[in-house]
This record gives sequence, structure tokens and C-alpha cells, in this order.
Amino acid sequence: MEMNHHGTVERWGCLELSFPGKKDGNPFTDDTIRGIFTGEHETVETDGFYDGDGVYRIRFMPSYPGEYRYTVSGTFGETREGSFTVTEAGPDNHGPVRVQNALYFSYADGTPFYPVGTTCYVWELQTDELIEKTLRSLQKARFNKIRFCILPKHYDYNLGEPRSYPFEGTPMDSSVLTKDNFLQYTGKTEGNHFDFTRLNPAHFRHIENCILRLQKIGVEADLIVMHPYDRWGFSSMPREADELYWKYVLARFSAYRNVWWAAANEYDLLSAKTVEDWEFYGSLMTRLDPYHHLRSIHQCMKMYDHTRPWITHCSIQRQDLYRTAENTDEWQKEYGKPVVLDEIAYEGNIQHGWGNISGEEMTRRFWEGALRGGYPGHGETFLHPEDILWWSHGGELHGESWKRVGFLLDILLNVPGNGLKIAEKVMQDWDCVHAIPAVESSAERSGYHLYYYSFMRPSFREFRFPEDETWQVEVIDTWNMTIDNRGVRSGKFRVELTGEPYMAIRLKKVPG
Amino acid sequence: MEMNHHGTVERWGCLELSFPGKKDGNPFTDDTIRGIFTGEHETVETDGFYDGDGVYRIRFMPSYPGEYRYTVSGTFGETREGSFTVTEAGPDNHGPVRVQNALYFSYADGTPFYPVGTTCYVWELQTDELIEKTLRSLQKARFNKIRFCILPKHYDYNLGEPRSYPFEGTPMDSSVLTKDNFLQYTGKTEGNHFDFTRLNPAHFRHIENCILRLQKIGVEADLIVMHPYDRWGFSSMPREADELYWKYVLARFSAYRNVWWAAANEYDLLSAKTVEDWEFYGSLMTRLDPYHHLRSIHQCMKMYDHTRPWITHCSIQRQDLYRTAENTDEWQKEYGKPVVLDEIAYEGNIQHGWGNISGEEMTRRFWEGALRGGYPGHGETFLHPEDILWWSHGGELHGESWKRVGFLLDILLNVPGNGLKIAEKVMQDWDCVHAIPAVESSAERSGYHLYYYSFMRPSFREFRFPEDETWQVEVIDTWNMTIDNRGVRSGKFRVELTGEPYMAIRLKKVPG
Repeated sequence: MEMNHHGTVERWGCLELSFPGKKDGNPFTDDTIRGIFTGEHETVETDGFYDGDGVYRIRFMPSYPGEYRYTVSGTFGETREGSFTVTEAGPDNHGPVRVQNALYFSYADGTPFYPVGTTCYVWELQTDELIEKTLRSLQKARFNKIRFCILPKHYDYNLGEPRSYPFEGTPMDSSVLTKDNFLQYTGKTEGNHFDFTRLNPAHFRHIENCILRLQKIGVEADLIVMHPYDRWGFSSMPREADELYWKYVLARFSAYRNVWWAAANEYDLLSAKTVEDWEFYGSLMTRLDPYHHLRSIHQCMKMYDHTRPWITHCSIQRQDLYRTAENTDEWQKEYGKPVVLDEIAYEGNIQHGWGNISGEEMTRRFWEGALRGGYPGHGETFLHPEDILWWSHGGELHGESWKRVGFLLDILLNVPGNGLKIAEKVMQDWDCVHAIPAVESSAERSGYHLYYYSFMRPSFREFRFPEDETWQVEVIDTWNMTIDNRGVRSGKFRVELTGEPYMAIRLKKVPG
Repeated sequence: MEMNHHGTVERWGCLELSFPGKKDGNPFTDDTIRGIFTGEHETVETDGFYDGDGVYRIRFMPSYPGEYRYTVSGTFGETREGSFTVTEAGPDNHGPVRVQNALYFSYADGTPFYPVGTTCYVWELQTDELIEKTLRSLQKARFNKIRFCILPKHYDYNLGEPRSYPFEGTPMDSSVLTKDNFLQYTGKTEGNHFDFTRLNPAHFRHIENCILRLQKIGVEADLIVMHPYDRWGFSSMPREADELYWKYVLARFSAYRNVWWAAANEYDLLSAKTVEDWEFYGSLMTRLDPYHHLRSIHQCMKMYDHTRPWITHCSIQRQDLYRTAENTDEWQKEYGKPVVLDEIAYEGNIQHGWGNISGEEMTRRFWEGALRGGYPGHGETFLHPEDILWWSHGGELHGESWKRVGFLLDILLNVPGNGLKIAEKVMQDWDCVHAIPAVESSAERSGYHLYYYSFMRPSFREFRFPEDETWQVEVIDTWNMTIDNRGVRSGKFRVELTGEPYMAIRLKKVPG
């Protein structure tokens, strides 16, 4: 047994150790690799994984700077020991995102985090060229979270083959698929020949690269572990295969700081799974991810019980054709957890009502959610000559709402503390969204007010403050992305507006 | 006693008899006049009223053609008897509007009636010139119902004096009123000197003229008997004064076929009144209006119990900033009565959220309500240099939604039967409003379908019908008011749309 010093890794960086080991039999099911990582402030036990070709790997994300030692053992080969140094985090590394104060998020280093995410279900299973386009689009729009699936997707506009499969084997002949018959194959296993005891390391290795590319540009990877848009049998595997897959996913991806776990997309459409199954996956995540990344489960129709302890935040899909983002504060009360509006319909023009709202309406939903202290999620579904829809494939952005993401983000980052909340309702607020910083104890004492008028078009609004208070008045056009400084005002004052929709007024108290 | 033959009156016309009588003392409180009108198919007892200057009048609306006799008696003077002939109704006279089949309206002669109304609270208390303008605007827009108040209105943009008062006396000095202090005077009585035992016949005579002018252009007069926007004490009179006023209103106006009774606007803001009071007014209406005109009561926040037997239909104000018209079918289920959406916000640009939605949003709410078998109500509140806002004063229409009223009305009048209803929900309908005629037993058997896509913007929609059925396909642009005939189709077919919002598709089965 030799003792290696593996140099340095950043705090919340990823240390990866790899060792040659057994390759006979089935290392995926037969062999183990487990490590203990010990620094001054933590001891972490975690599983490694078999990466094919006789190579075993184990990864570790340190939460503190300082000197660490490790011991790695298992059936894979001889026990290994070593040490390494954890340096302070680099300037763009704030650690993983945590729930900070009940309803809000911060990075581990305390920096406030306002998720403004998008959804591209299988962007990472497209061509290299399209993947690069997606990464550029994400940066251009300043999205800081993206939801995507580990497993390939079969659905309308998604009939092609993925670049790889998570298991060894061969898929059904997809040449039989048409826009009219694809639903008949959904959830079926016929014609597929996958070995659910042998994972395909290349599939996961590629996804890791994508997670790291996202990390580099400051984007959280909200990984959807299971989903119902399946024709390969991955949505209806037996418990042993599910467990092998989940453990492999957790062992490979947990040490990346930008990972979030979404147990499922539309869990309620996975007809082969029961609540007991979801609770089992929940227990795997809490037990096998030593870093306690954020965990959620996303519904189609029936909301999962988000009070379950393994769930860190609500990941919500539109519950009503007409109002969803507007319900944010009700869900906060009901579940006591951050509300991430991961699907409030997509901007676009496809035939389905979930995928054809306007950019204005999408942006309006963003603001309605954000001012209530919720976290809106973007998506796009525009018809495309090659069926490249952002919602699944990524690529180019074609809509209008993505252009307004950065503007909203800057408004949010300017809020004192790490979140907004609805001010206690007073009569004159019934017809606007009146937000104050979450850290304020009451609207009356708050030195910051943000009023949003949504689709309404007031020509002016009136305010009443004590005569001895002075307020900086700004008129925000959330659609045209302008902030108009209207100077300082006191007592009772009137703010002229344009009579256009999507306006907001921001008031900041001038220190007296 | 002499017997007079008073010539002829139309079925559902108004026979008015007038007699000289006592003028000493206080005829309003001390004297009575009551008539019995008898034809072959009905006997109606009803009160008359004192019209000032020693003149007493009594009115009667016959419901059947034929020969009638009457006896009029009371303390006013000697008993009078006579006869008259009721002829068939003229071509534009369909009688009063009735609830026909639980949720729908028809005129008494069976002609379907789809109320598409507007609100001009005190249009009739403005100058003659403005009144004429309002009547022209109503016709131009094809509104067929208007809500307005019998009592004058005190509110923001409504600080002027009315042309007359319902009682004898003098009002407070209104020169003290400003936009900032008017609320302090709301509901107060100080400074007013009205004699609540002496009505002002001229006030009511003028309103009658307005009711008749509306009748001539086919507009129902939805009379708001009480309301809270008051600085004269009319909203907080003692029970005896209320009763005198209500009885006078019922005696004067009941015989006009186009009258509807709205017991109150925003009853829940009349702080001096209790549910017992409203139930009392309800009993007066059922007892003293022999023709049983439609009766409703309109809320601000808290819905009245519309299951009460005296209420014929729900008169509903917006219950939520975001969805109201979309709740129509829920209220139909809850109350089992027609749902008239008498205030779903106003198109305009004033500071209040109830008065600043766009023409597009107003029109969208119209369609959302109408396709569910509800009856949308229009209103306008645009800032005006002389504070002439349609919502209160009538006058000119300045918005965009009124231009779309006639188009919707024509679509509705083309529906088989007298109403639409939501089709039983099937999966492919979750994202549209799918209406069928109320007379159809099921969507599957219906020969008429109307699909409305609201703010959604599908580029196409697909339909599946049996191969042996042929359907006439029309694409309706509800905003641009076009109906595009797309020919006949069978079996499974696709209808191309523009990707613009506010589209509808109408399918009519071609007889095979």
C-alpha cells in the first residue's frame, strides 16, 4: 500500500481518484469501491463507480479548505490511501446552492442565488455542434439553471435516437415511428434489448462533461433522473435495475457542486412507479449523496407531497391554464419550502397549450413569480423546420422572453438580502404585486418596495409615506427593460406611468 | 263611477292610467292607489304611485293579447273602472327577458337572449346632450343591456351634482370636495337636508324616459336600486324611508318590459345594511313586481348567496385579479343559475386595477365567459380631460373591446338553441375552451363545436371525427373579427392557424 499526495483541489471543487481494478465478471453489479475522505472539519464516506475498461473512479467535493486524507477500499482491488490539499474557492466558485432561509436560496459561501432557469430536456444528447450552440445561448440569456434528463427522450418532436444509451444494448427500430403513432410506443419495452445490469460509462462520461461545461459558465445542472417520455423501457425497469442506475448516477455526479436532483419530470405519468418507489429514490438520494444537493420532484397534474423531508424545494408545473406563478405565495405557505416554477408553459407556437404562450405572457409570469419570492422557469417551443425545439434540443433561442431574463436577474440581485416576499396586503395593494425584501419584518418598516402592475395599465399611481421620509423613485418597464429615475419624493406623491402594461415602480428609502 | 275604454296597448307594452286626486297632506306616505287588471289569461294586482301636483298614476304590462278590464281604487280618490284591448306584440317587442332553462335567457316570446351588456352607472343623470351621445354609443356597439343606478353617485371622477335628486331637499355643499378628500364624505349624511318622506317625481319621470329610450333601441335596463357611492345619505336611510323608496321604484318601473332589478351594486360595501335588509328588499321585489322581472345582487368582495330564491341570476364582479370569466362554469354549478359577469374589470387606463385592462384582455374575458354559457359585461374607464368616463357618465366610447361586441353577439345568435356550455372535458381539450350548444346531450353527439384558444397561439390544431362525418370548418379571428371558411373535412384533419392569439375554430356538421 502506498501513500500518494494528489496535489490540490479547490474548496467545492471535485477531486477524482482513479484506480485500475477487476474487469472480469460484471463489475457494475459484483464489485464495490468506497472512500473515506477526512479533513479537519469533515469526514465524508462516498461510493465510487466502475468506469469500464478495468478503471474504477471515486470523486469527492471538499467543503472546507485544508489538509485531507483518504482511504479507498472495496472488492475492486487493493485499498489505497493518500492525502491532498484543499485551497480556497476561486472567484467564480461559490459552492453548491442551498436552501438558506426556508423559502430562499444561497450558494454555500452565502452569496444569494436567484434561480432563473430554463428547460432543454435532452440538449446534452444532441450533436456536439448543437451542444455548443446551447451553451452559448445559455450564456447570452444569463440563465443560471437548466433542467435536463439523464435518460433519452421519446415524445412528439423527439422521435430521433439519442447519441448514447445509459445501458449496454440495442434499441427498438425507430424507423417505424411517426408523429401519429409515437404515443403507442410510449412506456413500452418491445423490440429493445438492453442489459439492465451493465451501464454504459460513455453515456455518463459525456453527461459529466456537459455538467462541467455548465459549471464553467455558472449554470446549475438540475438533473432529471427519471421521466415518462420513454420507448426503451427505462421508465419501467425492475427495482434492482432502478437501484443500480440511481446508485451509479449518485456515485458519478454527486461531487459536482452545480448538480441538483430532480427525482422525476411528471412523476405522475410514470405509470409503473408508486409513491413507495419515489420515496425509495428519495431515500437513496439522502443516503448516497453526501453533499445533500437540492432535491425535488416535478408533477404533471397531481402535486407530489412537497412536505416530505427528502424534498428541499417545490418544483412546480403550471397547475391551471390561467394562473400559476400567481399562486407562488400560496404554495410557499402550504409547503414551507422554496417554490421553483420549473414549467409555467413555454413561449412558442406549437399546437399544445403548454407550448404556445407569447413572450409578453412568459415575461409576465416570470415577474409574477419572482416578486412573490418564487423562481420562474423559462422554456421555448417554436416550430422548427428540423424539429429543433429549445425545450428539448437546446440550440438557438427564437423567442422574446429570454432577452428579459438578465434584466430581471439584475433587479433581483439588487434586492437587500437574498429574496423578495409579498408585503402584507393592504387595501391599496389589491391590484398590484407589492414585494419587499424577505429580510424586512413589515412593509411599513421596509426601506425597499417593488410594485408590479402586470397586464394592468395604470396611467399613474399614488403613494403615501410619512412627510419626514424621502424615497428614490424609479419606474421600471419590464418589457422594454428600462429603469427611469424619477428623483426623490416625500409624503404623498403621484408617479406618472405610460398606460402601457408590464410596468413596475421601485422605491428605495434615502437614508435620512 | 264611469267606465272608460282606453283603446289599445301592445302585449308587453305599458298601459298607463292617470287620475287626479288628493294633494293635501303627504300623498307619498298617506295615500294609496291600487289596480286590478283582468284579461282572459291573467289577473294582475299592482300599486300605482303619486306623481306630484295632485296626479296619481298606475301602470300595467299585459302578458297576453285580448280584452282586459280594470278597477283602480285607493285613498287617492274615487274608484275607477274601465277596459282596453291588448294587441299582439310589435315586431321589435319580444317581451321581458326570463330565465329559460336554468342557466340561459330568452325573451318571453321564446327568442333567445344573450345579454352583452355594459355599465354606465349614472349616464341618465348627466346632461341631455351626453344622454343622447350615450344612446347613440349603445346602438353603435350593439350592447343589449346597461346597468345603471337610480340614485346619484359620489366617487372618484364622480364629484359633480346629479341633474336631480330622488327626494325633496337640498344636498351638502359639494364645493368642498376634492379627489383627495371625497372618501371622507362617502356614506356620510352631514350637510344634507332631504325629506325622506317626500319623493321627487321629476327624478323618476326622467329615469322612465331613459328606460323607454333604451327599450326603443332594444336595450335592457338593469336598474341598480341601491349602491354605496353616496354622500347624500341615500345609502343609510332608515327602514321606513328605504321601504317608501323601494315601493315607489317598483310601482313606477315594473310595467316596463325591459327592466331588470339589481338590488345593489357592491352590496357588501353598504355598511349600514345587513343581510336581513337585503332579504327584505328581495321580498319587496317578489311581492310588488307582478311581472317577476329578473332580480340580482352584485358584490364587491363577498359573493351574496345566489341560491336565495328571490335571486334569478348571478350578477358577478371579478373575484380575482387573474381569473373570473374562466370561473363561469364553476359558478353555474354552485348556484344553478345564469351567470352574468357584470364587472370583469374595465378597459381603460385609470390608476385602479379594476379599470385599466386592455381591449384585448377585455375581449378575451368576453369570449372566455360567453363560451362557458356566461354573459360578459363591458365597461370603460379611460382618463378624460373633463372626467367623462363611460363607466359612470356614458358618452363616447374610446376603447377597442366595444367594437367586438356585435361580432360576438352574431356568433352567439348563430348557436342552435339559446346558449352554449362547456363540453365534457376530454384530454385534448385541456388547453382550449370547447363549447357546444346547451341543448346537446354530449360533445360526441353534438353537430356544433366552438373551440377558443384565448391568449394561446397554436400554429395548428388537430381533430378526429368518424370517417363518415363531414364538418364545415371555420377559423374565427375574434380580435380582427374575421371568419375564414376552410371548407369541409372528414375523419382526422388538421386546421392551420396563424400563431396569433385570440383565435377560435367553429365546426358545424354537414347533414349527411
